[in-house]
Amino acid sequence: MRGAVLHAPGDIRVEERADPVIVEPTDAVIRVTAACICGSDLWPYRGIEKPRLPRHMGHEYVGVVEEIGSDVRAVRVGDFVVGSFFASDNTCEICRAGYQSRCVHAVSMGSIGTQAERARIPMADGTLVATPGVPDPRLVPSLLAASDVLGTGWFAAVAAEAGPGKTVAVVGDGAVGLLGVLAARHLGAERVIAMSRHGDRQALARDFGATDIVTERGDDGVAAVKELTGGLGAHSVIEAVGTQESMMQAIRSTRAGGHVGYVGVAHDVALPGDELFFSGVHLHGGPAPVRRFLPELIELIIAGAIDPGRVFDLTLPLDDAADGYRAMDERRAIKVLLTP
Amino acid sequence: MRGAVLHAPGDIRVEERADPVIVEPTDAVIRVTAACICGSDLWPYRGIEKPRLPRHMGHEYVGVVEEIGSDVRAVRVGDFVVGSFFASDNTCEICRAGYQSRCVHAVSMGSIGTQAERARIPMADGTLVATPGVPDPRLVPSLLAASDVLGTGWFAAVAAEAGPGKTVAVVGDGAVGLLGVLAARHLGAERVIAMSRHGDRQALARDFGATDIVTERGDDGVAAVKELTGGLGAHSVIEAVGTQESMMQAIRSTRAGGHVGYVGVAHDVALPGDELFFSGVHLHGGPAPVRRFLPELIELIIAGAIDPGRVFDLTLPLDDAADGYRAMDERRAIKVLLTP
Repeated sequence: MRGAVLHAPGDIRVEERADPVIVEPTDAVIRVTAACICGSDLWPYRGIEKPRLPRHMGHEYVGVVEEIGSDVRAVRVGDFVVGSFFASDNTCEICRAGYQSRCVHAVSMGSIGTQAERARIPMADGTLVATPGVPDPRLVPSLLAASDVLGTGWFAAVAAEAGPGKTVAVVGDGAVGLLGVLAARHLGAERVIAMSRHGDRQALARDFGATDIVTERGDDGVAAVKELTGGLGAHSVIEAVGTQESMMQAIRSTRAGGHVGYVGVAHDVALPGDELFFSGVHLHGGPAPVRRFLPELIELIIAGAIDPGRVFDLTLPLDDAADGYRAMDERRAIKVLLTP
Repeated sequence: MRGAVLHAPGDIRVEERADPVIVEPTDAVIRVTAACICGSDLWPYRGIEKPRLPRHMGHEYVGVVEEIGSDVRAVRVGDFVVGSFFASDNTCEICRAGYQSRCVHAVSMGSIGTQAERARIPMADGTLVATPGVPDPRLVPSLLAASDVLGTGWFAAVAAEAGPGKTVAVVGDGAVGLLGVLAARHLGAERVIAMSRHGDRQALARDFGATDIVTERGDDGVAAVKELTGGLGAHSVIEAVGTQESMMQAIRSTRAGGHVGYVGVAHDVALPGDELFFSGVHLHGGPAPVRRFLPELIELIIAGAIDPGRVFDLTLPLDDAADGYRAMDERRAIKVLLTP
């Protein structure tokens, strides 16, 4: 089968890879209907993260089950499925508490690489959620978004305790930040402040429910959020970048006793203990337990209540993955969908 | 009146200070029945914190109202009162959300100095809680504890979401850590692991409800907590020290999705973003909003349901405050009560 492989920073090639097979009786093999490129894929692409190379790429996917191991019960051959970027058993104590991305048996789908024609899904019963019937092709981008960016933005909004009566600020205008706006609004937030300096992203943020746009960054961005919140800061802040500046911007934009939900994969971040202490904020985040939210998100998408697939502003055949990486690296695209 | 003054690191003197007077119509002046020395007083005493010197010392207090300003309504002359180490209006949006230590008008009682015969209490209506009648003198140490160490340990346990079915680990065996044990148990925690290497503190921790004692620190302490929790870590961890080592010990002792409640005043702490991200814990803490808990804590103390005053293992006349500081500095005393 064909699949994307990173050979060196900036060097993505779609090439022949071994067809996946059932390894454990709990595995499934899916034919990938759509995959995509994640902001976090850019870290190794840019050489900032240095994984062992060559590396199979991609961890987001929707597809059709082609084969199941002998112990798989919850999904069947032919099912259209959505899964998280972490495979999880969904039965251990950590999973049952809602933290499937930290399942005691978690397998990173990034180590498998879903930007490919097929993929092996470990612990299929715990990892995959089948849609009711084969979905309308127009829903595929939204279902694919649920696999990571929507689930991650949703988790960030839940971690930030977005809800009725709350003012929510969102740091980061990538796909996750934009879907954090959507999630915050859907969870009932009264006011959602999107922080973005890009017109197209501002427009999408407004469509997703942002009530205010702040174009300033860093201390000026903090001051703008305070200005909009009676000097107190937002109740809830979503952090969806992962840098020192964005984390401090998020913490400083939050009122004492408020909540920061952070999902940007942290790179070279060191949080000053004294400032964090006196900020009095709640801090929660990490790799989103997308599996917790998948059933609900799939239902909302099928019902047409949310349309997260709009974050995909470029669709390419899998074979053109390299073009997709370039477009995202140069911020010409918010998020790129790949069709094998 | 007499009051404690820090002149230089290690140099505490009890000397004549100006009698407090009503400055604002919302002030009260109290005669201090009992004050005490806080672990956080040791930071400037040891020269690690460098406030402007000379500095009035102390921020914990119980006493009797001697005089009130013309706008004071909730307390009367003659009332026996307990107050938090932050004066607060208890009416602003931050106070109403339960974060009185970060009141928009907060005044640090440390800037006033309650290791003295009398003290001015700003925003008396918001800051003070009167006991029902004059309490039995045997209850004074426990009521004094409510002013900071009990309220702080309680907040840490609440921030760590200690409760039924939970295993709670406590990093730090000072008065706050020990009262974190008491709070966790009172909040219904099933298992409370006290981390201490001192026999007398271990004994008090057990009396307060600790079910397990871990004597190891750092990575060994983390390993011991994991060993006791099926490899997962505690659901809830209370951090009551404030160093890099104690914060990392707390974070690493917590399971993914669990909660760290941290109340040790952070000194030279920098939290590594990537480790925090992948830990998946909730982090909440800071200066405890003691005022939130005071009514409930006073009720529990008067009812004899809790006996937090046991953390005071040395009582001295105010004039001997210097001896008290030395005893705490050398860890000969857990906590020192001063009687003016």
